[in-house]
Amino acid sequence: MTTKQFVLASRPKGLPTHDNFRMEDVDLPELKDGEILLQGMYYSVDPYMRGRMNDAKSYVPPFEIDQPMQGGVVAKVTGSKSGSYTTGDVVVGMFPWRKDFIANDKDVRKIDTSLAPASYYLGVLGMTGLTAYFGLMDIGKPKSGETVVVSGAAGAVGVVVGQIAKIHGCHVVGIAGSDEKAKLLTTDFGFDDAINYKTTADMNKAIAAACPKGVDVYFDNVGGDISDAVIRNINFHARIPLCGQISLYNSTEIPMGPRLQPMLLTRSVLMQGFIVTNYQVQFPEGIKKLAGWIKEGKLKFTETIEQGFENLPKALLGLFDGENTGKMVVRV
Amino acid sequence: MTTKQFVLASRPKGLPTHDNFRMEDVDLPELKDGEILLQGMYYSVDPYMRGRMNDAKSYVPPFEIDQPMQGGVVAKVTGSKSGSYTTGDVVVGMFPWRKDFIANDKDVRKIDTSLAPASYYLGVLGMTGLTAYFGLMDIGKPKSGETVVVSGAAGAVGVVVGQIAKIHGCHVVGIAGSDEKAKLLTTDFGFDDAINYKTTADMNKAIAAACPKGVDVYFDNVGGDISDAVIRNINFHARIPLCGQISLYNSTEIPMGPRLQPMLLTRSVLMQGFIVTNYQVQFPEGIKKLAGWIKEGKLKFTETIEQGFENLPKALLGLFDGENTGKMVVRV
Repeated sequence: MTTKQFVLASRPKGLPTHDNFRMEDVDLPELKDGEILLQGMYYSVDPYMRGRMNDAKSYVPPFEIDQPMQGGVVAKVTGSKSGSYTTGDVVVGMFPWRKDFIANDKDVRKIDTSLAPASYYLGVLGMTGLTAYFGLMDIGKPKSGETVVVSGAAGAVGVVVGQIAKIHGCHVVGIAGSDEKAKLLTTDFGFDDAINYKTTADMNKAIAAACPKGVDVYFDNVGGDISDAVIRNINFHARIPLCGQISLYNSTEIPMGPRLQPMLLTRSVLMQGFIVTNYQVQFPEGIKKLAGWIKEGKLKFTETIEQGFENLPKALLGLFDGENTGKMVVRV
Repeated sequence: MTTKQFVLASRPKGLPTHDNFRMEDVDLPELKDGEILLQGMYYSVDPYMRGRMNDAKSYVPPFEIDQPMQGGVVAKVTGSKSGSYTTGDVVVGMFPWRKDFIANDKDVRKIDTSLAPASYYLGVLGMTGLTAYFGLMDIGKPKSGETVVVSGAAGAVGVVVGQIAKIHGCHVVGIAGSDEKAKLLTTDFGFDDAINYKTTADMNKAIAAACPKGVDVYFDNVGGDISDAVIRNINFHARIPLCGQISLYNSTEIPMGPRLQPMLLTRSVLMQGFIVTNYQVQFPEGIKKLAGWIKEGKLKFTETIEQGFENLPKALLGLFDGENTGKMVVRV
């Protein structure tokens, strides 16, 4: 059969543009034993994908030129030569940006759409929710009464981090990029306070005011000047899970900033980078916890859903405009 | 009785000078119950003292103007109104820079000079040895076969770190500031390789050459450009204990450098500042380990001994010239 795919047409310099992607037809071969034919339902777009568009060593290999982009996809089975899957099953996995595609049955995982909407398995019950859970709990180790600051707080990971911190009895402050987002954090997601960095002249003072007892855990999704300001307010023995550096992803030169080590040293601070797959063996435990909190009404989740396969690049580029709230997915 | 003391005369801007210190006479009061009279034998001078000369929040409070400097001192008891100490006992503690001084018997600890020379309790069996031990073992967590890089490697902490890493089966590379020091590290202290950063044009390449499997643990005593070069060679899941930042201590402005977070993030690296007193409850365990390795001949230690109470400021200033090898102490 013939289907559509998006390939990486060229590597971006700085901010990616539509020219870096190309939609084209592709022929799929016949199914072999152990394989299944899948039709994409929901495609995840995530900030980390920007890194894979560079030709650089990182935790995941770069996308290749003229090869399909890939990411998390929820798909339904439309054909099967596997004993484990039948037509109509809904699965999740890392798949190419194709409307239809073939996968080995070992590379997919069946999902339970009675527990939560299918798209949630790309979000709060998928990589983003698990990223929030393990980064906060394993590295941040929040204790009741402590102050937790989250940057990129209205993003898919950020809203989950803040809510888990509230569940653990912390004072939670979010940093986001618009008044609407800041308001959502306090009204819808239970954050104690939120700061719109775009309208705040002195972030250092704003964080000090929102965190009268200093910052014990800083869950960093953004990096750059915002993180500098938070770190100026960091407490002795604080923990800083490094989850993302979206403010720097489109830099074409090595970004410079104040050296961190003197502050980390004099205040005995821990900073640790991580990727959710470090915790792969613990995923079932994380999903169970997250699903439990959703069921109890303690953990809410929002999505921005873009319609149409052809809008995959647009949805990805939108992440860097800061326009989305919560998890960005594309429904086909 | 009347004795001599050194006070902080003024706070340094940048590199400290002799003008920042003043020697003067001071009268000691009569001993009260529970107090002992002590005569200093060995005075420790340490890089961290530079931080206490500033009026800035840190892990130890600043020295006060016109008040005596203080630090680790080995002293002998010359008078006692305590049931726990008698004349002739040798003790260690944090004391003022005075030739004679009074201490509460709760603030001193008797030392066993049959196990090691008295001055060792300011070094390998004191704060510097314990700093090396806990920073490397608790944060660095070296595993056999891994590569450990130490900066400030010929310093009091550095030589101990390197030897403990060798005891644990690691490939150990030291960075130091002269050919003599680099040679000492490989010939006397068992390091596998050593780099003289002062004569190395491209530190990044030199570290890559000395660490063909990359860097798993970077024990950082210096900060600045040297650390930037090491971190460019850091492995996935590496650990960076932050012990000192001597290259930055005399900065008068906030030092700038390449932002670290992208590297720490993409390689899942842990960086953690610490001060040895975080491990206070585990000190007896650390001293036992270190003393055992000394006894087995696996752990060597060198000192630079300056003579004369009046040379305390000179000895401290000497730390910032990079002239000393091993622990710097002043014998009176």
